[in-house]
Amino acid sequence: MVERIARLAGADPRVEVGIGDDAAVLSGGLVLSTDMHVEGVHFRRDRLGPAEIGARAAAANLSDLAAMGAEPLCLLLSLGVPPGFDDLDALVEGVAVHEVALAGGDLSRAESLVLSITAVGTAVRPVLRSGGRPGDRLIVTGPLGAQAASGYTAPIVPRLAEGAELVGLATAMIDLSDGIATDLRRLAAASGCGARVELSDLPVAGGATQEQAACGGEDHELLAAVPAGPALPEWAIVVGTLTEGDAVSFLDASGRPRDLHGYDHFA
Amino acid sequence: MVERIARLAGADPRVEVGIGDDAAVLSGGLVLSTDMHVEGVHFRRDRLGPAEIGARAAAANLSDLAAMGAEPLCLLLSLGVPPGFDDLDALVEGVAVHEVALAGGDLSRAESLVLSITAVGTAVRPVLRSGGRPGDRLIVTGPLGAQAASGYTAPIVPRLAEGAELVGLATAMIDLSDGIATDLRRLAAASGCGARVELSDLPVAGGATQEQAACGGEDHELLAAVPAGPALPEWAIVVGTLTEGDAVSFLDASGRPRDLHGYDHFA
Repeated sequence: MVERIARLAGADPRVEVGIGDDAAVLSGGLVLSTDMHVEGVHFRRDRLGPAEIGARAAAANLSDLAAMGAEPLCLLLSLGVPPGFDDLDALVEGVAVHEVALAGGDLSRAESLVLSITAVGTAVRPVLRSGGRPGDRLIVTGPLGAQAASGYTAPIVPRLAEGAELVGLATAMIDLSDGIATDLRRLAAASGCGARVELSDLPVAGGATQEQAACGGEDHELLAAVPAGPALPEWAIVVGTLTEGDAVSFLDASGRPRDLHGYDHFA
Repeated sequence: MVERIARLAGADPRVEVGIGDDAAVLSGGLVLSTDMHVEGVHFRRDRLGPAEIGARAAAANLSDLAAMGAEPLCLLLSLGVPPGFDDLDALVEGVAVHEVALAGGDLSRAESLVLSITAVGTAVRPVLRSGGRPGDRLIVTGPLGAQAASGYTAPIVPRLAEGAELVGLATAMIDLSDGIATDLRRLAAASGCGARVELSDLPVAGGATQEQAACGGEDHELLAAVPAGPALPEWAIVVGTLTEGDAVSFLDASGRPRDLHGYDHFA
């Protein structure tokens, strides 16, 4: 489907970036991201309250805008609600906690709870996944593995300010939704580079293991490539470098590559 | 939830029209509509093939743009797919049949098939539901009841050209998704008017009953209010008038009001 959508998007010159990045970019700098959040796949109602479900879903969408260096304009929310679910207000309050306007929505019956959110933003100079070059430093915006360690219940903070700060500095950027083990491969492949990360350089969130930091999903920290030279923001944590070639290596303390794989919602 | 979203949308001046119209309007003329289409609620897989499901879902969203007099820019498609569903390509082809670029998407597992589509368009002068005035003629863009008569399997044509033609002519417009019995009430209420329709003036689609024409869902013809005076487009079918007050009456051949109610997906 991805290839099919990519071809269909390519048919309209007003779509400057279609599928394959964190968000679509239209001519004029409009940035659009859509995500579906499904009960039993992305969240469980016995672990999260409705406000937390709404807040997490919106955060994941806003994180896609952050990864483009975009400023949010509004959210659209479509809800499928199962029989007996009566916490719509709390769910909507959760979505609204990020203080981005909810411009519209739709409500339907469904078998299980489904939230589909579209985040709309603007970016004068959107940062794509594809601009990285060998030698660029790889940085992240915060500790990794907090979601896996918490059983995917810790609050998610979309890194909008950090994403905006990286505009003009980062050559490539992605949001860590499936773990750096997976998402670094995406950034490197889009940039036509390889990458090298020493696992001991990964910032491990409190309570998480190094494996969770590398492979856990939904952290929604940003991973960016920044050329050597310019000073980095003080919050930036350097985790590795982009390299020539196409090999993406995660090296353990003995310098041996580890075969790591991130989180897969389809697994 | 509707009131809650409306209040949240009102918090940002860049959202000119939030929930309560066919689509949201942002400052600058961006028009956004989102809809969720759920298996067993909006469609059945034993009645429609995947391409038809995709085409109908996209048509419903594009119809919301048509009802604003907007020009489509792109679609975003989020899909929840149940185990064993392997017709993604056909589904996406169906969405693409309307020749509007698919700028992005998301794919998730789900218990049943769910399509969430966001339609993005532009309108220099969007036509809202709220501009109608007593004395305006009520017109529709085509025969009604075709969907109910076909068991909701007939192809849907979003009336984009007609919607665009009504910009500057119509004072109010809505797309007939739940039947004129319901949607005329919405337009009249938003315009602060009443309305009167002689049921014998409704254009009844071939094979449909007058009841289906008044109360059937998903026809997606446009209903517009046009002031007395200007010539109407030749395709326009006059079905009634907006009136003073707030009563919306559907009159039978003897001039007696009928108590009619449209289609309700929650019923």
